[in-house]
Amino acid sequence: MTDVQHMKWWGWGVEGVGFHWEDKPGFAPFVEYATGLDLHTAPVISMPDFDKLTVADSLAPAAFVSELAAIVGDRFVSTDKMERVVHTYGKSIRDLIRVRANLIERTPDVVVYPADEAETQRVVDAAVAADAVIIPFGGGSNIASSLEPRADETRVVLSLDMGRMRELISIDEESGLARIQAGALGPDLEAQLEKRGWTLGHFPDSFTHSSLGGWIATRSSGMQSDKYGDIADIVRGLHVVRPSSPGRDGVLVIRAIPSSSTGPSVRDMIVGSEGRLGIITEATVQVHRTPAKRDVYAYFFPNWEAGTAAMREISESDATPSITRVSDARETSFSLATSKESHGVAKFLSGTVLPFLMKSKGWKLDDICLSFIGYEGGEAHAKRQKKLVEAIVKKHGGMGVGSGPGVLYDQKKFDTPYIRDFLLDRGAAGDVSESAMPWSKVNQLHDAVRVAADAAFDQIGIKGWIMSHLSHSYHSGACLYFTFAFVFGDDPIGEYNVVKTAIQQAFIDNGGSLSHHHGVGLEHAPWLEQDISSEGVAVMRGLFSAVDPGDNFNPRKIVADVKEPATSR
Amino acid sequence: MTDVQHMKWWGWGVEGVGFHWEDKPGFAPFVEYATGLDLHTAPVISMPDFDKLTVADSLAPAAFVSELAAIVGDRFVSTDKMERVVHTYGKSIRDLIRVRANLIERTPDVVVYPADEAETQRVVDAAVAADAVIIPFGGGSNIASSLEPRADETRVVLSLDMGRMRELISIDEESGLARIQAGALGPDLEAQLEKRGWTLGHFPDSFTHSSLGGWIATRSSGMQSDKYGDIADIVRGLHVVRPSSPGRDGVLVIRAIPSSSTGPSVRDMIVGSEGRLGIITEATVQVHRTPAKRDVYAYFFPNWEAGTAAMREISESDATPSITRVSDARETSFSLATSKESHGVAKFLSGTVLPFLMKSKGWKLDDICLSFIGYEGGEAHAKRQKKLVEAIVKKHGGMGVGSGPGVLYDQKKFDTPYIRDFLLDRGAAGDVSESAMPWSKVNQLHDAVRVAADAAFDQIGIKGWIMSHLSHSYHSGACLYFTFAFVFGDDPIGEYNVVKTAIQQAFIDNGGSLSHHHGVGLEHAPWLEQDISSEGVAVMRGLFSAVDPGDNFNPRKIVADVKEPATSR
Repeated sequence: MTDVQHMKWWGWGVEGVGFHWEDKPGFAPFVEYATGLDLHTAPVISMPDFDKLTVADSLAPAAFVSELAAIVGDRFVSTDKMERVVHTYGKSIRDLIRVRANLIERTPDVVVYPADEAETQRVVDAAVAADAVIIPFGGGSNIASSLEPRADETRVVLSLDMGRMRELISIDEESGLARIQAGALGPDLEAQLEKRGWTLGHFPDSFTHSSLGGWIATRSSGMQSDKYGDIADIVRGLHVVRPSSPGRDGVLVIRAIPSSSTGPSVRDMIVGSEGRLGIITEATVQVHRTPAKRDVYAYFFPNWEAGTAAMREISESDATPSITRVSDARETSFSLATSKESHGVAKFLSGTVLPFLMKSKGWKLDDICLSFIGYEGGEAHAKRQKKLVEAIVKKHGGMGVGSGPGVLYDQKKFDTPYIRDFLLDRGAAGDVSESAMPWSKVNQLHDAVRVAADAAFDQIGIKGWIMSHLSHSYHSGACLYFTFAFVFGDDPIGEYNVVKTAIQQAFIDNGGSLSHHHGVGLEHAPWLEQDISSEGVAVMRGLFSAVDPGDNFNPRKIVADVKEPATSR
Repeated sequence: MTDVQHMKWWGWGVEGVGFHWEDKPGFAPFVEYATGLDLHTAPVISMPDFDKLTVADSLAPAAFVSELAAIVGDRFVSTDKMERVVHTYGKSIRDLIRVRANLIERTPDVVVYPADEAETQRVVDAAVAADAVIIPFGGGSNIASSLEPRADETRVVLSLDMGRMRELISIDEESGLARIQAGALGPDLEAQLEKRGWTLGHFPDSFTHSSLGGWIATRSSGMQSDKYGDIADIVRGLHVVRPSSPGRDGVLVIRAIPSSSTGPSVRDMIVGSEGRLGIITEATVQVHRTPAKRDVYAYFFPNWEAGTAAMREISESDATPSITRVSDARETSFSLATSKESHGVAKFLSGTVLPFLMKSKGWKLDDICLSFIGYEGGEAHAKRQKKLVEAIVKKHGGMGVGSGPGVLYDQKKFDTPYIRDFLLDRGAAGDVSESAMPWSKVNQLHDAVRVAADAAFDQIGIKGWIMSHLSHSYHSGACLYFTFAFVFGDDPIGEYNVVKTAIQQAFIDNGGSLSHHHGVGLEHAPWLEQDISSEGVAVMRGLFSAVDPGDNFNPRKIVADVKEPATSR
């Protein structure tokens, strides 16, 4: 119908691409060790038949659908069942479990694909006039339940798919600023920039299936944020479509200005607003000349504390690497398990170097932590950063193992969600949860989350696994990114909620944010008050109610009803 | 009464400190050339007698004053005339002209000095219960009319002086985060940090007389922002006192977290809020170990275009200097005129080097531009940055003249407001206005502002002067900081408004922000809609009305009544 590509309705990525374990000899033993799941015998759960999904009829009146079609054209409005299912959820594990289990309480009633900002304005105006709910949709990769209509929504729900708005409009080469439509997905956006010698430098794990508008709406961060900044630092100009009023269109325009004392910052209200303040149609973002060098090197540290201490010292030093990342011992063993035999890191550990280190330096296999550090810029700059960083790595007992594993890291970095689908097909649920905290809380929070997750696994009587890495270093702290998995029982959602809740509460209790780059949505809303205090929530609530009095824009996301925590759904 | 020091009621800084021109042989000829003012013959305007100032009686009922005294103690509440005058205005040229001319339409009715956050909470609650207006007061250096009560305000106006709340509460040394009370002035704050080996690195021109809370409330920037960031980047945690409600105090707490995807960002609503969202009582800010090297070097460029092109290229390069600044030719001649004879720069130009450059390279005296570039960090880092920068300087035809002038720049950097007072004493009005814009607009805006200011001077039939420098480089643009002066006639405020309006409009018309680091207040509010679009203003207005329904917190600042532009007052 349209040329907009969507991910599989039942999982991550496109049809035909998936994770394979046959060429990774360490994977099956690792999964069995971590979760008790025997991949050799586990039955593969067959996909439900799409035709058997129970989806309620669209509530959109024919006249409203016609009105929308008159704006965007017949081809670009749909009440089709597949379209509505695809636009119901994001791709959290809860989303996948629900859609596979035919747990679809509420779909959007109509999906609309505007061609440009003017059409978006007319769609928004028509929707508000009809008192419909508008939920913007980019790549559909959200994992914070920001996309789903509320189950009890009685009004017509319109999913506004931005997929046709994906052009690089222009580059101001003198200023390093590119004007790009909000619906552009990562690869398409980078390809258009690369053709002209530029890069945005924003590479979240979801990169292949997430959009510029989505990154902005969820206050996202990419894995090279140490150099390029979080999306909040990258975005300078914005266009946001809001309801028009007599005599003027409703386009909120933040001009692309490097810095301004105009406060409160409306730009920083839009960034992270998840559709509640309007529809982001384009952004002017900082872009950089493609660097001469873009290297990722691997290092090993004897243990987690040494690794995090090194990352902290790097952040305080004169060095400016593009990536600082260290996995804890558990994630390190996972990385080795997902490696092919020829993988440099696996070879390193199975060869002669490790026995030497264990003997001469007293390293313990169970403690070793794998780290990746990136260097970007001119040749001399990258070389110097590497030298500065490696002096600090050495000081903390670390050891370089070259750029081979780094290249592999670069190739594999967007593949993790496929592993999650693979496990889900075999009865294990896994997902991610991340937090940012001051350096002084990094180790404490790391350990507390492990303890909290283990207690949650015990509570529901299952064998579970949790591992993490530090990434995204800032002057005053860093992000810890946790991945957890367990073989689910009779109530996968309920069991997931117990684990997720324990992890989130440990974040807050140990000085961390409720999320670092996945937004709030419904998933994290129960912790909002603990995150920004009740007065902070009151300010947010005031903003939303004043700016969207009709509650038409993705209502009840971020500031959810307190009576309705994510855990009880 | 209290130990809180204030600036002179009639000018900048403390009594006994002023600008002297006798040891600067170039100054008088320069002033005569620039503005027509002959310093040798100009009568020195005598200060008005404070006792003759017409100040209306305080509207604060005795019972309300007693209630406040019961909270903070008798010593820390005042309806005294001097206290009320000192808290009426900031220190813009318009403020100084008005207070000296006995144009005081409305003072605060009562000045209160809370000792801590708990007292601030009780004062705020008492004030809101009495439907009073609350205006927070830090160092009193504001130049955007953010401090003054509106002339037609019929309610009791309370000036909340934060001067007693100035302690460094604690430093998290591992994270580089310091918790500091909002009333701390620059020198006191840096001294407390320096004692423990740290620096905040925030040095606005107002440094000696501005406060941490004021920097945050006006979204300020310091001259070393290239390295340390603007205050919005520096502030991580915040405490903001808002009215309490049944069962809970009103303290909004943003925890000190390096980065978070919780959006819309309440932190970035507070930063720049000028008291409209509550009273900032403390902040947790990024601090840095005092660097081993903190050098400022001077350079000359053959002309403005060469200087700005070099600054742009530095911002795009791998170099990370702490200061990038280049004066236009006019400001360069001003710098030379305010130099003592022994000044390295003056010596340079009067010695043999300049004739050589003019002859061999074709430099023209009227085009030469002075630049300061700072290098901070470890020895090797500072040295390397200097090397990287100087290659770019050379490429654009620039030439280094050593660190001597840089040292002088460092010593003189906070003195400019004293020159303004000196001129005002002699019948000339001067002030500053600055804007940030993309690199591609820097030269265009620079020239357009000059043209606009000259047209404004012509319009009012006076000889005026405008000069500027580029400072605060960002990836995508920079700040241009303009200083203007003219000998005023019968209507100094009206004449000032014509000039200021012309400059501000040229900012907006040429892609610049309405201010870069001085906030909005009343002064810049008429350009807010052109700055962030009418929808942006609607969002701000919605926020203020929802969060402060009683209009008690510094009402009508930032989003002023559109019918009441600054120019008509």
